[in-house]
Amino acid sequence: MSTLLNGIAASNGIAIAKAYRLIEPDLTVSKQTVESAEAEVSRFNKAVETSKSELQTIRDKAEKDLGADKAAIFDAHLLVVSDPELLGPIEDKIQSEGINAEFALKDTADMFVSMFEQMDNEYMRERAADIRDVTKRILSHLLGVQIPNPSMIQEEVVIIAEDLTPSDTAQLNRQYVKGFTTDIGGRTSHSAIMARSMEIPAVVGTKEATSAIENGDLVIVDGIKGEVHINPTPELVEKYKQEAAAYEQQKAEWAKLINEKTVSADGQHVELAANIGTPKDLEGVVNNGGEGVGLYRTEFLYMGRDQMPSEDEQYEAYKAVLEGMGTKPVVVRTLDIGGDKELPYLNLPKEMNPFLGYRAIRLCLDQQDIFRTQLRALLRASVYGNLKIMFPMIATLGEFRQAKAILEEEKQKLMAEGTKVADRIETGIMVEIPSTAVMADTFAKEVDFFSIGTNDLIQYTMAADRMNERISYLYQPYNPAILRLVKMVIDAAHKEGKWAGMCGEMAGDETAIPILLGLGLDEFSMSATSILKARSLINKLSKAEMEKLAESVLQLDTNEAVMEAVGKAVK
Amino acid sequence: MSTLLNGIAASNGIAIAKAYRLIEPDLTVSKQTVESAEAEVSRFNKAVETSKSELQTIRDKAEKDLGADKAAIFDAHLLVVSDPELLGPIEDKIQSEGINAEFALKDTADMFVSMFEQMDNEYMRERAADIRDVTKRILSHLLGVQIPNPSMIQEEVVIIAEDLTPSDTAQLNRQYVKGFTTDIGGRTSHSAIMARSMEIPAVVGTKEATSAIENGDLVIVDGIKGEVHINPTPELVEKYKQEAAAYEQQKAEWAKLINEKTVSADGQHVELAANIGTPKDLEGVVNNGGEGVGLYRTEFLYMGRDQMPSEDEQYEAYKAVLEGMGTKPVVVRTLDIGGDKELPYLNLPKEMNPFLGYRAIRLCLDQQDIFRTQLRALLRASVYGNLKIMFPMIATLGEFRQAKAILEEEKQKLMAEGTKVADRIETGIMVEIPSTAVMADTFAKEVDFFSIGTNDLIQYTMAADRMNERISYLYQPYNPAILRLVKMVIDAAHKEGKWAGMCGEMAGDETAIPILLGLGLDEFSMSATSILKARSLINKLSKAEMEKLAESVLQLDTNEAVMEAVGKAVK
Repeated sequence: MSTLLNGIAASNGIAIAKAYRLIEPDLTVSKQTVESAEAEVSRFNKAVETSKSELQTIRDKAEKDLGADKAAIFDAHLLVVSDPELLGPIEDKIQSEGINAEFALKDTADMFVSMFEQMDNEYMRERAADIRDVTKRILSHLLGVQIPNPSMIQEEVVIIAEDLTPSDTAQLNRQYVKGFTTDIGGRTSHSAIMARSMEIPAVVGTKEATSAIENGDLVIVDGIKGEVHINPTPELVEKYKQEAAAYEQQKAEWAKLINEKTVSADGQHVELAANIGTPKDLEGVVNNGGEGVGLYRTEFLYMGRDQMPSEDEQYEAYKAVLEGMGTKPVVVRTLDIGGDKELPYLNLPKEMNPFLGYRAIRLCLDQQDIFRTQLRALLRASVYGNLKIMFPMIATLGEFRQAKAILEEEKQKLMAEGTKVADRIETGIMVEIPSTAVMADTFAKEVDFFSIGTNDLIQYTMAADRMNERISYLYQPYNPAILRLVKMVIDAAHKEGKWAGMCGEMAGDETAIPILLGLGLDEFSMSATSILKARSLINKLSKAEMEKLAESVLQLDTNEAVMEAVGKAVK
Repeated sequence: MSTLLNGIAASNGIAIAKAYRLIEPDLTVSKQTVESAEAEVSRFNKAVETSKSELQTIRDKAEKDLGADKAAIFDAHLLVVSDPELLGPIEDKIQSEGINAEFALKDTADMFVSMFEQMDNEYMRERAADIRDVTKRILSHLLGVQIPNPSMIQEEVVIIAEDLTPSDTAQLNRQYVKGFTTDIGGRTSHSAIMARSMEIPAVVGTKEATSAIENGDLVIVDGIKGEVHINPTPELVEKYKQEAAAYEQQKAEWAKLINEKTVSADGQHVELAANIGTPKDLEGVVNNGGEGVGLYRTEFLYMGRDQMPSEDEQYEAYKAVLEGMGTKPVVVRTLDIGGDKELPYLNLPKEMNPFLGYRAIRLCLDQQDIFRTQLRALLRASVYGNLKIMFPMIATLGEFRQAKAILEEEKQKLMAEGTKVADRIETGIMVEIPSTAVMADTFAKEVDFFSIGTNDLIQYTMAADRMNERISYLYQPYNPAILRLVKMVIDAAHKEGKWAGMCGEMAGDETAIPILLGLGLDEFSMSATSILKARSLINKLSKAEMEKLAESVLQLDTNEAVMEAVGKAVK
């Protein structure tokens, strides 16, 4: 008997593989007395030995895959796990107090950690971190729980997690990770966006994936219907293999449109671009016939590391993307960090409402060294392609003016140093804050383009956290309030002879595309894997008819009424 | 030498009194060895004795002020603080291990607490809570720190706090609390709103009040200029006594307007109403010439207690307010809980972004028993005055329709039971979410009135948490985006023959009032203490001229430009 979980279809396709649970185990311990201190010491020693051999394996693999300098951290851990100065007091404590190994370990290790941390010495503070890591590992063996280590995955798996953070996903190996499923999140959560960008099937928001699925269970992830099957019958596996083949065939059909332009049935051309996170994603853009990059999320450059990327490092990444796209446009969004995307080395304070907090351009205008480094790297790379720079989270005209002035300053400095910079770089903004949509007419006089970020625009306009399951009914992309704001932005752009794009999830959505075409959107930027399907749809739509549709849905009163109207108009 | 702190003027007036620090002390302890276990035991016993006599005092005062049943909790504490089963093991531990009393106390108490908590028995779990409270008290004496107890204040004080939660403020005694000052918060934080409603001077957001001010320091809170003086010179105290007298005189001048209507220089009448939190606030409304209650925040009924208020309890409160206001309108907002206002007995889950979360109408439509109880209480009270019911945090027309349908159901049920209900009760909504402002035309066909909640409307429209100091520059009430949304709402109401009010902080703001008058706002609801000043201002303004001003500022591009334009137009 297979078990079925329903969730949200977050990334198309079908995956069939064994489950790998990416879940931090509970390592809390309490003090307990034991009957035999001898037996407890020997249990402790066994856990230490297992940890040691595990560390040795990880160390060797790290050296092979990542080089000796990355492996050094595990050498340090190996020293700790063999250190009699640490192990001795723990054994003594077990014996003298007759208590459990977990508590003796935790108590002793905490003492060392707090001692080392209080020393005003970088080296000793690093030792404190080593002890903490090693303690965690030994504890996991004592408690019989598993600490996941995704970099060690060496077979095809489906990842099971409560949610995936951007840094989790950055660690996943595309070769082995065939799909994933999470307890929480929606179509616009970062795990969903990453899944689409990695082109792997995903079902999110299943509520119970982590409680229902064990390591090694066979799992089918149906990213088309939003279903997860646990330990399916052989018949079901067979059926899904056929569906996977059919899906591949549909993709082959769409693939014929790779080199076509995107033109409506009545001859209106629009641009279909891709959202990317790293230069590696370019392959997907090319394979899916993207006419440009509509959103390059530069924050991935800053993640999964322990310090800022240097100007040169950034320059290389931007250059690679610009060269890869040739003469096609590349819209690079400057750093959008903060909110739910944290960088440990930035030491950002905890905020009560991070989505309404110190993030993106707010942080960049405040910590200008970070911002200027990125802008210099972009300016230097600008000569290698068709660069457009976009500022995220702009709420006021004052912010845009300040950001643009800083860009201009860095450009003048570079030119004074004799560095070549492209003559003309379009400068635009994300429209994702309601104030900016409402004021689009004044912005349009000063920006070169708008790109509407619907994921955030919807959450702010509806005042509803898009990650919060309890109020997910308020994530309403077709609410006429959203559509009216989108119209304000497009109309304002056109009135000043500028272009308006969209880089939120809505741009690739089958219900939204007819309305957006009708409203006159110039550029649709989406997950690369959605492009061919969208092109196939737009080829069949008449722009003139969609204009009428758009006009009529703006007068409706609810999200549901709009969905119904589009459903009727577009079959 | 006196010390000066600058902050945000949150509530008018001047207070001069001794400081009372309302700050939870740090009670973390670490294990340390001591030289003399004997001395340590005697230090411990002394702390126990001090705690005992302190508890005795609190118990006696509680019995006198609150009655024997409220004092019973302290009887339980007195039993714990004298219990040899708890004290014995602690003394033993100090002696046998030669460690500090703090750690021996904490470790032993934690063990008892976790033992009692694990028992499946309500009585034992309450004992766990008692032990935790008593441990905290003894620890505070061992550590030489003070646990504040605002209910024990018996002299005039100025409260010093990091921030004040609604439940903190609910405990403050108006007789003795003459003013307060906090480290964080802005003009729209709850501490600021409470200060205005309690009519006590307050300065918030000083950043360092808690670090700069000691218990007992003489403090001047200048809630007009936003200054706090610590240990002022006698000359400065004298000067402030004169200023306080001048402020009283200005208030006396305004007081002449108490029974006047609010009419612009060219004869346009508008209504000035008050925001209130409890029936007790009615006195302030009457004393300040309020023409109605524009916002009755019912959540205070639910706070500072351990269970829901019953239908009858609510009925009494609503009836008191309605009777107190006679024929004047009373707009009651249904429960707006969640966000930063929590109710312990509701067990709301922690949210990542509570301001964008499960709160207000979202919670009421989900937990309908709470909502229906409140609506029944309101319906029963409706016959005693001029009740209008207002739903908070409405984001979609669907939510309003559902809320209204539930109200209608309860009305029919009550009438079927033979209970009298007012024939006609106006039903309206708060407009505090951008989507609702943008869709005001469709809402206006179904609601009886709008009340614009600017505090939230601004924070959502600008996507900036109004409590977050780091991005306080984005709290821009005069940003043309906000003014345009306000205009949309007022115009939509008038087109359907409905009225539009405002109950956010902006309604009482000197810079905003001229614009709002020009935009045609019908009702201005504010802290009672702001009413007479606002009336005095409106009496001098010409509506026709303000219409022109409003039209011109809507075309400006920044908050600053609007402030400047109003400053020039209104002297």
